[in-house]
Amino acid sequence: MSEILESYIAGRWIAGTGDGRPVHDAVTGEVVTRVSSEGIDMGEVVAHARTKGGPALRAMTFPERAAALKAAATSVQEGKDELYALSARAGCTARDSAVDVDGGIGTAMVYASLGRKGLPEGTVVVEDDFIQLGKEGSFGGRHVLTSPHGISLQINAFNFPVWGMLEKLAPALLAGVPTIVKPATPTAYIAAAAVRMMIDSGALPEGALQIVAGSIPGLFDELGGQDHIGFTGSAGTAAVLRRDPAVTERSAHFNAEADSLNASVLGPDAVPGEPEFDLFVKALVTEMTVKAGQKCTAIRRAIVPESQLAAVADAVRERLSGVVVGAPGAQGVRMGALVGTDQRADVQQAARQIADAGTVVFGDLDSVDVVGADAQQGAFMSPVLVRIDDADRPEPHEVEAFGPVSALMGFRDADHAVELLARGEGSLAGSVVSADPDFVSAIIAGAAPWHGRILVLDRDSAAESTGHGTPMPQLVHGGPGRAGGGQEEGGLRAVYAHLQRTAVQGSPAVLDRLG
Amino acid sequence: MSEILESYIAGRWIAGTGDGRPVHDAVTGEVVTRVSSEGIDMGEVVAHARTKGGPALRAMTFPERAAALKAAATSVQEGKDELYALSARAGCTARDSAVDVDGGIGTAMVYASLGRKGLPEGTVVVEDDFIQLGKEGSFGGRHVLTSPHGISLQINAFNFPVWGMLEKLAPALLAGVPTIVKPATPTAYIAAAAVRMMIDSGALPEGALQIVAGSIPGLFDELGGQDHIGFTGSAGTAAVLRRDPAVTERSAHFNAEADSLNASVLGPDAVPGEPEFDLFVKALVTEMTVKAGQKCTAIRRAIVPESQLAAVADAVRERLSGVVVGAPGAQGVRMGALVGTDQRADVQQAARQIADAGTVVFGDLDSVDVVGADAQQGAFMSPVLVRIDDADRPEPHEVEAFGPVSALMGFRDADHAVELLARGEGSLAGSVVSADPDFVSAIIAGAAPWHGRILVLDRDSAAESTGHGTPMPQLVHGGPGRAGGGQEEGGLRAVYAHLQRTAVQGSPAVLDRLG
Repeated sequence: MSEILESYIAGRWIAGTGDGRPVHDAVTGEVVTRVSSEGIDMGEVVAHARTKGGPALRAMTFPERAAALKAAATSVQEGKDELYALSARAGCTARDSAVDVDGGIGTAMVYASLGRKGLPEGTVVVEDDFIQLGKEGSFGGRHVLTSPHGISLQINAFNFPVWGMLEKLAPALLAGVPTIVKPATPTAYIAAAAVRMMIDSGALPEGALQIVAGSIPGLFDELGGQDHIGFTGSAGTAAVLRRDPAVTERSAHFNAEADSLNASVLGPDAVPGEPEFDLFVKALVTEMTVKAGQKCTAIRRAIVPESQLAAVADAVRERLSGVVVGAPGAQGVRMGALVGTDQRADVQQAARQIADAGTVVFGDLDSVDVVGADAQQGAFMSPVLVRIDDADRPEPHEVEAFGPVSALMGFRDADHAVELLARGEGSLAGSVVSADPDFVSAIIAGAAPWHGRILVLDRDSAAESTGHGTPMPQLVHGGPGRAGGGQEEGGLRAVYAHLQRTAVQGSPAVLDRLG
Repeated sequence: MSEILESYIAGRWIAGTGDGRPVHDAVTGEVVTRVSSEGIDMGEVVAHARTKGGPALRAMTFPERAAALKAAATSVQEGKDELYALSARAGCTARDSAVDVDGGIGTAMVYASLGRKGLPEGTVVVEDDFIQLGKEGSFGGRHVLTSPHGISLQINAFNFPVWGMLEKLAPALLAGVPTIVKPATPTAYIAAAAVRMMIDSGALPEGALQIVAGSIPGLFDELGGQDHIGFTGSAGTAAVLRRDPAVTERSAHFNAEADSLNASVLGPDAVPGEPEFDLFVKALVTEMTVKAGQKCTAIRRAIVPESQLAAVADAVRERLSGVVVGAPGAQGVRMGALVGTDQRADVQQAARQIADAGTVVFGDLDSVDVVGADAQQGAFMSPVLVRIDDADRPEPHEVEAFGPVSALMGFRDADHAVELLARGEGSLAGSVVSADPDFVSAIIAGAAPWHGRILVLDRDSAAESTGHGTPMPQLVHGGPGRAGGGQEEGGLRAVYAHLQRTAVQGSPAVLDRLG
């Protein structure tokens, strides 16, 4: 498998030319595959989507698209074991793979169901009843949502090659828009494997789904006002792409979901002995260790009452000390590797900046005991908890270590907690762990403008809670400011975001015929 | 009034320093005022909105904001005569002023009503009932919409200094977001007069509304993820602004509404003698002449059955020949001046390109008979109709003459008409004038993805139809691609677009308390 990873374009699997960029096994350091898009004609990719995929999807009704999506997701479900095995090479434990693979399949299935139940027969969504615009009722308006004659370019992050792809693909498919997936290079082989399952299943019309492993030079030149670009990744890359004339001059839609400095707040009521104290500690450790902290929604900032700083630090330390780091599948391993050693170096550097603003109370930035692998050959790293004694310092609110690193800090009162939450300048997810309704309300009211999602965790909901870090297809995912200012998922909102809304005006008879 | 036009910032009216840029009377060429923002501290403007206007508006409930909006609109209503008089200096007839001034007041009033009736008590919109996310029902989600802690920068076009301002101000106010108006220089004095009425009325809390006449250097540097930029103007300027780091790096929301090459289609059923034939001709002439064609929604392309080209040309010519051009208010004048002679030169240049692709069948690019003014001192221009014999030529679909200029061309069948409509690459408004349901349906189905609004005009709705060029506050205004890819108005959608949507997850008890 150390040949060039194949891309699926214009109805065929094709390898880029040249040596390609090697992708290393996160655990062993071996070369897994090479990635190159050299020689692939981006114009051909886009043209294929436009001339084959688009017309085919637009000819399908919403229920037909929902059925196709379900069939595609089923094919991935059937290939799950292969995806788990590949994910292990990217450092993922079975728990990590569940989030990505099962999470992705589940998301696609939810969308198939929403599409079947929530979208009409036919190909047009009609919004609003007749809005009368005159005294006599002979003239009025309604809105219709129709499929643009464009494509959806989906640029995904390395951490969720399956979920990140399916949560973008699902609404695009329902909207009748053909997809071009551009996976992140370090895990492109996992995304490509999932695409191969869907293509082989025959569930989708030809041209509805293509994948280009590697860079996509010139592809933006082909995009314009009918097209949609869905991006997940760093704020820096988002900014570069958003400056492209495709967006600024030709009004291609651009949705960004960027990593953010998400926080969880512990309520003053949740002292040791209360269930919420334990829920907070458990959630923090989960968020630090699942996917080795490589989640855009992970808790980077743990914000607790100043009086509880020591107690929380002790409890987290105790729990983290039970987390075995090592090769996925090896005896007792709870946390796997980062995706690669380059990534580890980035995380270590960021963690060092945060550590310099406080005190490391658990873990070691440079060394870790590892089971079943070599700690340096593999991209392993210890979970690291940093206590920040001055919560108003900038570092924990501005520096993101995209790994198993969190900063613990104290707040004085609810207003101060809200202020600290807002210091993240926009987050994908926040949480408040408390059974005090007033405190919870104060945090929600104060922090909502800076968040795409806020989870309230308490003894009542804990058993079924999906957790701080888990976006749900029914709810919006995305956040303001640093988090990119975009919005994905949110049930059918994500489908509507791919459709063109058009006001139609005329007589009642004309508007009746829209439905 | 040839002093520097005052801006209203941080609670005071203040004139910029320096000589300023002269603004000329569109009819006489006299200097009306001078515009300069020199010496105005943009940081102070933004800080005032953030520290005074934002908190004051957010402390008001939706009904309180709706009442304030209504009071502000009422103050403009009371000052209507002054605005008509000022508008006349910008070349507007009373009919033109009605579109801008009464249209703006009406839009604000509709929003006040929508806000009172359609928004809840309090300051939070709760979307969705409980969305269950587990088997037992102990955990679920809902969405809340809350006011961002940001400002709304509203950059308006010269053609609608009142309407363009009020249609942006109204939803921002309801959303609890303070406004900074940046009017277009040629008609800034009209916008400033309307702002003065609203400020003097005391309807709005201090800081909720400021206006900066002139350029706004450095203002974008102050903007970020909580802020909203609403832009109306040329696609070129939109592209420049959209490239700013405020948008690309800090995720400020950016909504663009750009001029587009709107088209009206005549149905094959609407032969001479049918009411729709006359309705088409009348609408085209109206759109060419109201505001001297300076409307972003005006009909630039008249698309008629090839067999009707000559008949339509004759009928339009006849009707246009009855349009008296001249000083607003002068005897019999139906069409006023363009906003200025620079603008006229731009329009003439663009019209020449279109004319070179066809034949001028009415009007003269360089001369016009004018009543009550000097045709050259004032920015007068004749309506110009160009017949394009080869409808597939690029010019009429790509060159916009932002004045009383339209291109007339023929289509072969409904598919060809749709193809021509789509050649505009995205329009704010399209229309189809026909009583044939199948033709109308074919045009809507085919052209909707390229349009923000499509008006169907026939004998049934004509009496109450608001016309091709008139955006309605209840319906979306904006269009894909060339039209900027944005969306304004659309009833409460415009208010929601200013609010942050946040998914909240928790127990039913927690989610019950959101409402």
